[in-house]
Amino acid sequence: MSGPDGLPPAEFHARRDRAQAAMRQEGLAAMLLTTEADLRYFTGFLTRFWESPTRPWFLVLPAAGDPVAVIPSIGAHLMGRTWISDIRTWRSPNYTDDGIGLLAATLAELVPAGERIGTPSGQETQLRMPLDSWAALQARLPRHRFTGDAGILRRLRMVKSPAEVERIRAACAVAGRAFARVPEVVHRGLPLSEVFRRFQVLCLEEGADFVPYLAGAAAPGGYGDVISPADDRPLAAGDALMLDTGLIRQGYFCDFDRNFSVGPAAPEVRDAHARLIEATRAGFDAARPGATAADLYRAMDRVLTGGAGGGDAGRLGHGLGLQLTEPPSLIPADDTVLEPGMVLTLEPGIDLAPGRIMVHEENIVVGTQGAAWLSPPASPGIVELP
Amino acid sequence: MSGPDGLPPAEFHARRDRAQAAMRQEGLAAMLLTTEADLRYFTGFLTRFWESPTRPWFLVLPAAGDPVAVIPSIGAHLMGRTWISDIRTWRSPNYTDDGIGLLAATLAELVPAGERIGTPSGQETQLRMPLDSWAALQARLPRHRFTGDAGILRRLRMVKSPAEVERIRAACAVAGRAFARVPEVVHRGLPLSEVFRRFQVLCLEEGADFVPYLAGAAAPGGYGDVISPADDRPLAAGDALMLDTGLIRQGYFCDFDRNFSVGPAAPEVRDAHARLIEATRAGFDAARPGATAADLYRAMDRVLTGGAGGGDAGRLGHGLGLQLTEPPSLIPADDTVLEPGMVLTLEPGIDLAPGRIMVHEENIVVGTQGAAWLSPPASPGIVELP
Repeated sequence: MSGPDGLPPAEFHARRDRAQAAMRQEGLAAMLLTTEADLRYFTGFLTRFWESPTRPWFLVLPAAGDPVAVIPSIGAHLMGRTWISDIRTWRSPNYTDDGIGLLAATLAELVPAGERIGTPSGQETQLRMPLDSWAALQARLPRHRFTGDAGILRRLRMVKSPAEVERIRAACAVAGRAFARVPEVVHRGLPLSEVFRRFQVLCLEEGADFVPYLAGAAAPGGYGDVISPADDRPLAAGDALMLDTGLIRQGYFCDFDRNFSVGPAAPEVRDAHARLIEATRAGFDAARPGATAADLYRAMDRVLTGGAGGGDAGRLGHGLGLQLTEPPSLIPADDTVLEPGMVLTLEPGIDLAPGRIMVHEENIVVGTQGAAWLSPPASPGIVELP
Repeated sequence: MSGPDGLPPAEFHARRDRAQAAMRQEGLAAMLLTTEADLRYFTGFLTRFWESPTRPWFLVLPAAGDPVAVIPSIGAHLMGRTWISDIRTWRSPNYTDDGIGLLAATLAELVPAGERIGTPSGQETQLRMPLDSWAALQARLPRHRFTGDAGILRRLRMVKSPAEVERIRAACAVAGRAFARVPEVVHRGLPLSEVFRRFQVLCLEEGADFVPYLAGAAAPGGYGDVISPADDRPLAAGDALMLDTGLIRQGYFCDFDRNFSVGPAAPEVRDAHARLIEATRAGFDAARPGATAADLYRAMDRVLTGGAGGGDAGRLGHGLGLQLTEPPSLIPADDTVLEPGMVLTLEPGIDLAPGRIMVHEENIVVGTQGAAWLSPPASPGIVELP
């Protein structure tokens, strides 16, 4: 018996147990979770409905026992298909009380007065509920203490289970097949906006469930940034084209890119691409248990700048999984120690000239002996399009 | 000269002016905005990069003068293509100070001590930054007062400009063409997951930039809910199939659905579909300036239940635009008075039996004399697939 995301209850029992062990260490009587990724992590509640910002959704994980879902009634049927048995609903939107009374009663029932309720509050977290509701909740429970989660969610979610790694691997394989087919459908003269559409079609044909993220750019000898939407400019000979996708397969993301040259590549583009691949491989070689996120940054930066650092992106890679980007960050300040099961992007960038950059990205998983590729690693030679 | 979203500066000047007029009325010296939709509303900063939750982004709109962007350096190039000229950046992620120092300095410069800084805090809003950063920001500015935005963003964004209406109309037209082609590619025996993929391909072929939202279901004589992901069950004769999409064209959403019958429709499915269309038309007829959101609810509910109300969805329609769902809500408690330029979904649902529902949805815009369809309105007869 598995829920809407297809993972078995044992997967969620293990996540619950790891969380509760950490909560005991940190002295948390419960955790209150509000985001798509955190709720799905403990329940398997898979839906695109989070695209609607209207309704808040809550999950309470007590220090002992199973999580309790406190959710809008529109989600009752789907949550009923997960392993969660205690599902409390209200009809949302409700302008008088949009779930806060029900949530406060649930917390009061599960958490003794005076105890601590933890909510993710550090770097990369968000509270997905209105600020007014957050204030109202705390006012309703004056004898409880609302605190951060001591980084528990960050630490838990950074290390993927074998089932999670397999899903990310499957998403990467879909994108790898789609990238391999780009030369079939992309050529000089095609507007970038049409390149984006055709690439998304390739992703779907190869098995993506959704393509929430696609960025890219095309410009002579390097592009201006890596987050812009597509415009209607036709591809021209000499353009460096980059496509970076975060597609979803069974609820898990891949996140990697490919560079192409429209027609023969200029020498500096060819050289930059080869250097990016070299940097990626240096990051791959450094990715062993016991190394830190900062070590991977330094290994790649040595190839890119000789160790000078820099770059507007602010980092050379990151975690991924339920979300397109997750902790850790490959930056000098991140001393996260790598463990088997961590999934990372390696994402080196090069400044070719003012306003002209190139970025390459691959996805890897840390194993007991070293890293393994999840994305099919690109060759040093940049692919040339007709 | 237009920015990455293609809208001219005059569009943003008008939005700024309307906001500042409201701020003066409410006594706000500045607004602090953190979400994708709110930032884009005032800047035209269009990117899928918000899919990455890692970095916070800030926009400060003072009571006079132009907005100031306080953003990660990875966004500097793209923000530089908008009409915003005052762009302040930091290299993010930064574990010591992820933009809070820069944001506090900006607010201190623009807002006199003792004055109020408003942030959206009511129903349907979220603060997109870590709670710890939010606390740190307030601690750095002890002489400023952080308050809600008095609903200003809600009121402003509910009324669309002609340019916004045209974009939503264009998105609706794309989805309309895609729905019309469903009988070409969907048939009995096709797994629902493959139906989802093929429908997304149709949307892209017809001009969608992205298809962030697709939900749906297929089951004999009505489905269980409207937010579930696809499973691999093949379509069977007698299934009622519903596909509900929020696709994006030039940064604006449509949000409507279509129902199909796999093979000949059972009489109760046919009747339910005709009733849903009748309810939609009742909502359409009621959508005139001066009517309230609650009036539209009642007009549809009268057809659906004779006025008894109910339904797990919690409402019978909502606003849309920059986001898949926006205020108002078509519920008895929403007394929002309709104005020309408001774009709404009409989304009646029927309970056929326990666990079997059908939902229909169209998109309309309120004009000076009454409503106009943005989606091509469906006929009472349900479309039958081979």
